Amino acid sequence: MATNVKQTIVQPGDIAQLIDSRGNQHIVQLNPNGNLQTHLGQINFEDLFGLYWGSHIKTHTGKNFLLLQPSLHDILINIRRSGTIMYPKDMGYIILNMNIVRGTRIIEAGSGSGAFTTALAVTVGPEGHVYSYDNREDIQSLARKNLEKLGLTDRVTFTSQDIGYGFNESAVDALFLDLSNPEDYTEVARNALKPGGFFGSILPTTNQVSRLLEALNAHNFSFIEVCEIIQRHYKPVPARLRPDDRLTAHTGFLVFGRPMLYTGKGSSLNKLPDVIDS
Amino acid sequence: MATNVKQTIVQPGDIAQLIDSRGNQHIVQLNPNGNLQTHLGQINFEDLFGLYWGSHIKTHTGKNFLLLQPSLHDILINIRRSGTIMYPKDMGYIILNMNIVRGTRIIEAGSGSGAFTTALAVTVGPEGHVYSYDNREDIQSLARKNLEKLGLTDRVTFTSQDIGYGFNESAVDALFLDLSNPEDYTEVARNALKPGGFFGSILPTTNQVSRLLEALNAHNFSFIEVCEIIQRHYKPVPARLRPDDRLTAHTGFLVFGRPMLYTGKGSSLNKLPDVIDS
Amino acid sequence: MATNVKQTIVQPGDIAQLIDSRGNQHIVQLNPNGNLQTHLGQINFEDLFGLYWGSHIKTHTGKNFLLLQPSLHDILINIRRSGTIMYPKDMGYIILNMNIVRGTRIIEAGSGSGAFTTALAVTVGPEGHVYSYDNREDIQSLARKNLEKLGLTDRVTFTSQDIGYGFNESAVDALFLDLSNPEDYTEVARNALKPGGFFGSILPTTNQVSRLLEALNAHNFSFIEVCEIIQRHYKPVPARLRPDDRLTAHTGFLVFGRPMLYTGKGSSLNKLPDVIDS
Amino acid sequence: MATNVKQTIVQPGDIAQLIDSRGNQHIVQLNPNGNLQTHLGQINFEDLFGLYWGSHIKTHTGKNFLLLQPSLHDILINIRRSGTIMYPKDMGYIILNMNIVRGTRIIEAGSGSGAFTTALAVTVGPEGHVYSYDNREDIQSLARKNLEKLGLTDRVTFTSQDIGYGFNESAVDALFLDLSNPEDYTEVARNALKPGGFFGSILPTTNQVSRLLEALNAHNFSFIEVCEIIQRHYKPVPARLRPDDRLTAHTGFLVFGRPMLYTGKGSSLNKLPDVIDS
Repeated sequence: MATNVKQTIVQPGDIAQLIDSRGNQHIVQLNPNGNLQTHLGQINFEDLFGLYWGSHIKTHTGKNFLLLQPSLHDILINIRRSGTIMYPKDMGYIILNMNIVRGTRIIEAGSGSGAFTTALAVTVGPEGHVYSYDNREDIQSLARKNLEKLGLTDRVTFTSQDIGYGFNESAVDALFLDLSNPEDYTEVARNALKPGGFFGSILPTTNQVSRLLEALNAHNFSFIEVCEIIQRHYKPVPARLRPDDRLTAHTGFLVFGRPMLYTGKGSSLNKLPDVIDS
Repeated sequence: MATNVKQTIVQPGDIAQLIDSRGNQHIVQLNPNGNLQTHLGQINFEDLFGLYWGSHIKTHTGKNFLLLQPSLHDILINIRRSGTIMYPKDMGYIILNMNIVRGTRIIEAGSGSGAFTTALAVTVGPEGHVYSYDNREDIQSLARKNLEKLGLTDRVTFTSQDIGYGFNESAVDALFLDLSNPEDYTEVARNALKPGGFFGSILPTTNQVSRLLEALNAHNFSFIEVCEIIQRHYKPVPARLRPDDRLTAHTGFLVFGRPMLYTGKGSSLNKLPDVIDS
Repeated sequence: MATNVKQTIVQPGDIAQLIDSRGNQHIVQLNPNGNLQTHLGQINFEDLFGLYWGSHIKTHTGKNFLLLQPSLHDILINIRRSGTIMYPKDMGYIILNMNIVRGTRIIEAGSGSGAFTTALAVTVGPEGHVYSYDNREDIQSLARKNLEKLGLTDRVTFTSQDIGYGFNESAVDALFLDLSNPEDYTEVARNALKPGGFFGSILPTTNQVSRLLEALNAHNFSFIEVCEIIQRHYKPVPARLRPDDRLTAHTGFLVFGRPMLYTGKGSSLNKLPDVIDS
Repeated sequence: MATNVKQTIVQPGDIAQLIDSRGNQHIVQLNPNGNLQTHLGQINFEDLFGLYWGSHIKTHTGKNFLLLQPSLHDILINIRRSGTIMYPKDMGYIILNMNIVRGTRIIEAGSGSGAFTTALAVTVGPEGHVYSYDNREDIQSLARKNLEKLGLTDRVTFTSQDIGYGFNESAVDALFLDLSNPEDYTEVARNALKPGGFFGSILPTTNQVSRLLEALNAHNFSFIEVCEIIQRHYKPVPARLRPDDRLTAHTGFLVFGRPMLYTGKGSSLNKLPDVIDS
C-alpha cells in the first residue's frame, strides 16, 4: 500500500487524509503538482511535502484542514459509501476468525465495491493472493479502480465469470462468499478449498442463514458458527458519557465453517489438491 | 509464525490443532518424535506427517481426533484462557481501526498473557515491531513464553519498567494501553507517538473511560472515539435458528484518539521526532 | 391480589418477601400461626404482625432477614423458575403493547407455569378476565396452584382442551399464544378476537417467526410487528460502573398483529361478534 | 380512561385511532357532531358510531382509513413525540419492577409531557393516585392537557414546586425521579416513601448513574439495580426476516432501589409514617 506506515514526514506519492473543521474528509494520493479543490478553497500538494503528519494546514482562502495518514479503517469506511453492507467491525472479525494472514491465498465472491478486497489485499501481503470473482463486470471495474488507487492490484486477480461451474483455483486457504445464495455454491467452494481451510459468508436474512447451514451440513463442513458483530458508539464527553442515540443494528449474519475430509463411503467425493507444498 | 498457511500437507514443525469428539482442543507444535498425551490416548506426531490437514485420525486406543491448522483466532482464544479480557472480536476491530498493518511499529503496555501481543506480532510482520511493556516481570515471562511457542519473538521487544518515566521509543505509529489508569500516561504516550499516530486503550468501567477522555482532551488528542464491540452467537441449527441463550455482555470499552501537533502557544510542547524517514 | 400495596404495617394474610443476608428470598403468605422454616432458623409470622415493611428481623437462631412486600416483578421471577422463558422485561412490554388494562378480556394459550397468567390477572383486575388454555392438565394444575397462592383465581378461567377446534369465547380484546406452532391457530385466534383486537405471541426461533408471519398475512392481520426486548444489567458500583459480564441474550421474539375486518370478496369470512356492548 | 376496552362497536365519546394508507395516525375523541380534518379529506364522527372497531372507512373524498381503538402503547408513543426520552419499552419494565398496580400511590418528578404520568394513571386506577411534580408550570400544563384528553385527571394531582424542600405526601408506595440530578433528592425521596417502598429513576449518562448510586448508598437504600432495556425490531417479512438496519440504542439507564429502615445508630433518622393502614 502506498501509505508507508513508518513515516513521520509527508512525501510525494503518499496517501493522505485531509479533514476540514466540520470533519469532512478527502482521501487522496499526493502526486507532485497535484492539488485538492474543495468549496473551502484549494490545497497544493507541493506545499505539504516535508511537513509532519498531524499538522494543521490552510487552503489558499485560509480555511483550516488537518493533514493525516488515513488508517485502513478510514479507507474502508470511505469505500463502503458506494453500497456494500460490510463494515470494519465485521471485516476485522472475519479476517481474524478465517486466519487471513500474510501469505494466505483467498477466494472472494463477489467483489462488490472492493472494500473487503482491499482489507484482504493489505492483510495477505505480496506473499499471498486474493482471487476476486463477480459475475457483473461493471461492478468489478469499480472494485478494480479502488484497488488501483491504493497500489494493491498486484495482489488481486479479478475474474468475471459464473462461479456455478467452479473456481479456477484449488487448495486455497480460505474462501468468502458475499452473495445472496451461497447455499448454491457450497460444493464448488468445497472443491476449491484445501481440507481444513476456512469458509465464510455474510448474509442479511435469517432465511438465507438457514439455507446456507443446510448446505454446509450436507457437504461435510464442521466447526460451523453463526454470529453477529454489533458496534455501539458512545458520545466521548467525559462529564456526560453516554451511548449514542442510534446505532447500526444490522449489517449481516456471519457464517463460518471448515471442510473436513470425507471418510468411509463418502471418501471418493474428496477432491484432493495436488501436493504443491514447498 | 510457524504455521505456513499455504500448506495442505502436515510437515514436521507445524503448529497443529487436535480436536477430540467433544470439541476439546490441543494446540501443539508437531516436533519430530514428539507426541500428545490425552485421557483418550496418545498421538505420535510421526504418524501425522504427510497427512492432509482436515484428516480424521485416531489415538493408540482408537479414539477419533480431527487434525487441523489453527487459525490466529483459535490461537488467541487459547491464550486468552489465562486471564485477560481482550477477545478476538475486540482485537480484530482495534487492529483495523489503529491501522496496524505490515511494517507498523507499535508500543503496547501491559503485556498481559501475550494474546494481543501475538495478534500484533502476526500483523506487523518482520518489517514492523512490537514494543511490549509490563511492570510485572513474572507476567511478562508468561507472554514471552507464549510468543516463543509461535516463533514470533524476533518481532517483539519485551521491557519491564515503570512507564511513568516514558517509553524508550519515539515516533511510533501506534500505541495501545491495556492497564487500569491510562489517564496517567497520556503525556508519555503522546511523546512516544508520531504526530497523527494512533492511540488506543481498553477499559472495563465507565469511570475509567471518563478519566481517560479528560486526559486525552487535555493533551490535544483529536478524533476521539469510544465504542464497544458485542458479539452475539446463534445456534447453527438450520430448522431452529436462534440466538444463544447467553452472551458475553462486556469485555471492555474501546477508546481511540490521534495526537495532533500543537499550534500557537502550545507548540513548544510538541516533541517532534528526529527525521528518520527512509 | 393479597398484597395491599398501600400498606405500611404488616398484617395477617399479607404476601411477604423474606430475604436472608445472602439475598436468598422466600415469598410466602403470612397466615396467623404460620411460620417459615429455613436452614438459618425459623420465623414465626405472629412476630411480624404490626412491624413496618422494610424492617430487619431475626430468626429464632438470631440470623438476619429483611421483611418486604414483594413486587409483581419479584413474584413473577419466582414463578419463572419453574421453566417458562418469558421474563418480566418481555411481559411488561407485551402488556403495554397489547393494551392489557383494567377490564380487558384476554385469552392465553398455553398456561405454562402461570407466570404470565399472574401478570395478566393482576393487570385486568376484577373487571376483566383471563381465559387460560393448555392441553396438558398437569401443567395447568401447577399454574392454578400458583394463582391460588395469590388469591387471583376469580379472575382466571382455566380450560384444558385442544384449541384446534377453537376457543369458547368470542370478541375478546386480546389473545396471546405461547406455544410452539401458533401458525396453526391464527384462524381460530381471529375468530375469537374482536375486530381490531390485539394478537401476540412469543417464539424462540426465527423459523417459527417466519411461519407465523405467513399465517398472519394469510388471515388479514395488520400492524404486524416483530421485536426483541433485551435487558442489560450493570454492576451498581458508583466508582466502578460497568455492564455485567454476561446477559440473557435471548428469551424469545415477540410477534404482534391486529385482525382487520375483511372487505369485498372476503367479507363473508368475518365472524362478527353479537353486539353485546354495554 | 375513555376507551372501554371491552367494546366491539364504536360509541360516541370513544377514543379512536384513525390511520391512513401510509400509516399516519390520528388519536382523537369521537365527540358527537365532531370531525377530523386531514389533507386526505374529512371524516364525520357521526358516520362512525355503530361500526365495528377494525372497520375500513372513507373520507368525504374517498380516501381509505382504518378505524381502531388505540392501545395504551399507541397513546404513549403519540405523547412521546413532544420530547421526553422514556419509551414504552422502559415504562413497561419500570411499572412491573416498581410494583405499580391498582391502588398504588406514586410520586413522580418531573411531569414532563405526561406520557409516563398517563401510563401510571391508567395502571393505578381510581383506587390509587399519582402525585406529579414539576418545577416548570408551563411544562406541567402540557402534561395536564394530555391527561384531560384521556379523562384521567381525577387520578393525578399536579404540583408545581421546588422539591428540594420535600414532597407533600408521605408513606407513598413508589417514587420515580425523571430529572437530571436525582442524587440531590434521595433524602426527600426517602422521607416520602414508606419503608420497603420502590424508588426508581431514569438517567441518560453514566456519570449521573454513578452520582445517584453514591447517594442511594448513603441513604440506606438496598436492592439497588441498574439496567437498560433495548428493543430490537425486525422487518416482518416471512421470507426475508432480518433485524431493522437501525435501532434506538439509548434512551436511559434505569436505576432502582428500596429504602430499608435504619437500625442501631441511624435509627433516629427513620421518618416513619403515621399508621394509616385500613
